Amino acid sequence: MDMGDFVVRPIGVIRSALKDPADAPKQGALTDQEAEVVVDPAYLPALDGVEKRGKIIVICWMHVADRDRLKVHPRDRGDRPERGVFSTRSPHRPNPLSLHTVTLLGIEGNVLRVRGMDAIDGTPVVDIKPHSPELDG
Amino acid sequence: MDMGDFVVRPIGVIRSALKDPADAPKQGALTDQEAEVVVDPAYLPALDGVEKRGKIIVICWMHVADRDRLKVHPRDRGDRPERGVFSTRSPHRPNPLSLHTVTLLGIEGNVLRVRGMDAIDGTPVVDIKPHSPELDG
Repeated sequence: MDMGDFVVRPIGVIRSALKDPADAPKQGALTDQEAEVVVDPAYLPALDGVEKRGKIIVICWMHVADRDRLKVHPRDRGDRPERGVFSTRSPHRPNPLSLHTVTLLGIEGNVLRVRGMDAIDGTPVVDIKPHSPELDG
Repeated sequence: MDMGDFVVRPIGVIRSALKDPADAPKQGALTDQEAEVVVDPAYLPALDGVEKRGKIIVICWMHVADRDRLKVHPRDRGDRPERGVFSTRSPHRPNPLSLHTVTLLGIEGNVLRVRGMDAIDGTPVVDIKPHSPELDG
């Protein structure tokens, strides 16, 4: 099955007090961590209308992940049996995309202040979508 | 802001009776459409454990989208004012990733049968995650 590859271009970056993957909450853990989503000014028009939404979904590219791992111990606990990465939220997966449903606290120019973001400082952002309880709940 | 690009490699493909983008439900519409997610056999180990989950999130790459559009008329309705794509679920966006929270009806080998999939036949799949009401709701 060869469908060709696609190129993902970061549209922004996470700015957070979380600097080290070891400090980040384990995948699947809820967090109140506040952070900034700094959008590349080139994409400013794409933010038009975002301020009207309370919850947004930020999609990041977990650039420190291991893309060749197909199985992991859930939440890095060696005492739990390995499972396929598609049945976990592990950052290690063929395409290390992460979903963050966060609360939009404010927006100033190209900077979105959000709560509930567990991605570490410097993580590339690749998309932002409005959250829909109907579609995503 | 130049963070370099990343390469997305499809891990599967959508097989659906929806053949034409014009037939697909508009973005944001709910659907009962059933479809298959056919996973590349190379990633079979990554599916281990998936059968235990009722709802999954399938992330697709909307290969027919226009990546240069930063504003759209919501739901293609010309009478509605244009908005930034990050405030919509339009397929047209810088990185045309789509989120599909679907019900897993069954799994046989590398084929997942799902309900609620509005992606058209042939759409590349780039990730599969368990849905978490706590994280995603």
